[in-house]
Amino acid sequence: MDEFAAIARFFRPLSEGRPEALNLLDDASLITPPPGKQLVITTDALQENIHFFSDDAPRLIAKKALRVNLSDLAAKGADPLCYFMTLGLPPRVDAAWLEAFVAGLAEDQQRYGVFLAGGDTTNSEHSLSISITLLGTVPNGEMVPRLTAQSSDFLYITGTIGDAALGLKVRHGDATLSGKEREFLLQRYLLPEPRNGCIEVLRSVATAAMDISDGFVQDVQKFCGAGLGLDIALTALPFSPAAQSWLSVTGDIAALVAGGDDYELLFSVAPCCKEELLQAAHDFGFPVTCLGTLIAQKPVRFLDASGSEMEFSAGGYRHHIA
Amino acid sequence: MDEFAAIARFFRPLSEGRPEALNLLDDASLITPPPGKQLVITTDALQENIHFFSDDAPRLIAKKALRVNLSDLAAKGADPLCYFMTLGLPPRVDAAWLEAFVAGLAEDQQRYGVFLAGGDTTNSEHSLSISITLLGTVPNGEMVPRLTAQSSDFLYITGTIGDAALGLKVRHGDATLSGKEREFLLQRYLLPEPRNGCIEVLRSVATAAMDISDGFVQDVQKFCGAGLGLDIALTALPFSPAAQSWLSVTGDIAALVAGGDDYELLFSVAPCCKEELLQAAHDFGFPVTCLGTLIAQKPVRFLDASGSEMEFSAGGYRHHIA
Repeated sequence: MDEFAAIARFFRPLSEGRPEALNLLDDASLITPPPGKQLVITTDALQENIHFFSDDAPRLIAKKALRVNLSDLAAKGADPLCYFMTLGLPPRVDAAWLEAFVAGLAEDQQRYGVFLAGGDTTNSEHSLSISITLLGTVPNGEMVPRLTAQSSDFLYITGTIGDAALGLKVRHGDATLSGKEREFLLQRYLLPEPRNGCIEVLRSVATAAMDISDGFVQDVQKFCGAGLGLDIALTALPFSPAAQSWLSVTGDIAALVAGGDDYELLFSVAPCCKEELLQAAHDFGFPVTCLGTLIAQKPVRFLDASGSEMEFSAGGYRHHIA
Repeated sequence: MDEFAAIARFFRPLSEGRPEALNLLDDASLITPPPGKQLVITTDALQENIHFFSDDAPRLIAKKALRVNLSDLAAKGADPLCYFMTLGLPPRVDAAWLEAFVAGLAEDQQRYGVFLAGGDTTNSEHSLSISITLLGTVPNGEMVPRLTAQSSDFLYITGTIGDAALGLKVRHGDATLSGKEREFLLQRYLLPEPRNGCIEVLRSVATAAMDISDGFVQDVQKFCGAGLGLDIALTALPFSPAAQSWLSVTGDIAALVAGGDDYELLFSVAPCCKEELLQAAHDFGFPVTCLGTLIAQKPVRFLDASGSEMEFSAGGYRHHIA
């Protein structure tokens, strides 16, 4: 079918009932900013055989494309609103593939309260590429920036670290762990769970926040910038039981803290707000771990079990450009 | 260099002086909607060897990626504001390529008054892909939709039709015309000129508008929808001198009216506003041609020199999906 038939069949249902999208029949979409709100906008692209494998389930590729963007918005304390998507589709993509891809988007639209506001569906010569621009809103002045942590703030992280990096090893055939553990790690890699349950809490208590997507070590350094630091005992980090098993067999902690795709939130909280955070974490059921207190003029140091500083050559995933 | 060094060197200068972009150092960007305005948002992706050739000048590829989006916004009567860009860069892209690409963006940012608000720079396995989401603004309620033309409105088009389609033939080696004519057509293909000079006028006089990008025949049919029509004498269409030369040699009018990449504007004007349009076209120096009067319950028909109806199997460019 041609692109216009494909839009009608696959994509228009994703914008149904939302006048902003103009039925995907216009040159653009019309977004009326809610009064008293600012727009928080993020964009991330996924490339075939870089961010996902050609034979990954299309339903999961779709969800991952949306969720990596949702994770960025959650880190800013922004409520997701709608997204724009461009697709570069190679010849091998057929109607069944697109149907599953769209089903994944539809499920996550429901789950996260977003809709497709516009897009562009094109052919690509070889590789599949998906680019999503996600819009969200915050009450005026309430976006949580990345680089505004203060000395003496507590540094927190949600969830567990390193599962997705191990999931990628499993995807590559690593058979170190039991089938059940491997399945858990693979899921963490294939289907991130953006921390949307933390959005309101972050706006209320966080002095700064970011999502951990390029590796814990690298992202902590980015968060702290040049002005703040702390000592982090790597063995005290939150690891899942599967990651702990893997660590007990291999001893390779670097694989956990310097891999990517965690999609957990790193954020700072002033001492006065610590109780409010812990109460909210309890009430809304999201796990948080305190990594320590941020100190001015101090470097970020990562310590091993013996208290010695560990060095990481890369510290996480970086695309190599030019 | 890694992606963060590339962002600092190449992309941060494109957001300089714009606090919305947060120095491209945060997870997202913060856009404060101007009071009394709505956002008009469009997105278009360009794929290597589909929308451009691998060895096209990177400066021109950059401009085309931005301009195809600017053309969509112009058609909505929207003033451009800022854009988000994701890049999938294959290994062959080097620093010199990126430098020229960014120089093209910088020139057009200046020319069209936009800035880079955010992005994502990734590796791709084989093909270069560029996805841009462009935000613009209109005063509340003043966006010009595509599908709201009325019976008895005049139908207008800006500029000339078919030059870019011939430019693509030139790019493929067609040597029908003189070198000077070929150069003109090639430029029209490589470097579209979005009709930003028409933005205010469209808001003032147009009952509906769209940009012609997938071929004149197909796009006129889209514009008219099921409810309106008119007879269009193809020989009376606005063609450039180079296109007229080509037509006199080949007689192939279909190549002009069913090719793509025109980036001219098609719009309807109520009889009462015709004088205002013509005055503005004169004052601001953009060429317009009246194609006729829209009539309810009438099909769109394209007539050849003898007055016979011409049929077009495709009528323009369509990506073949699934």
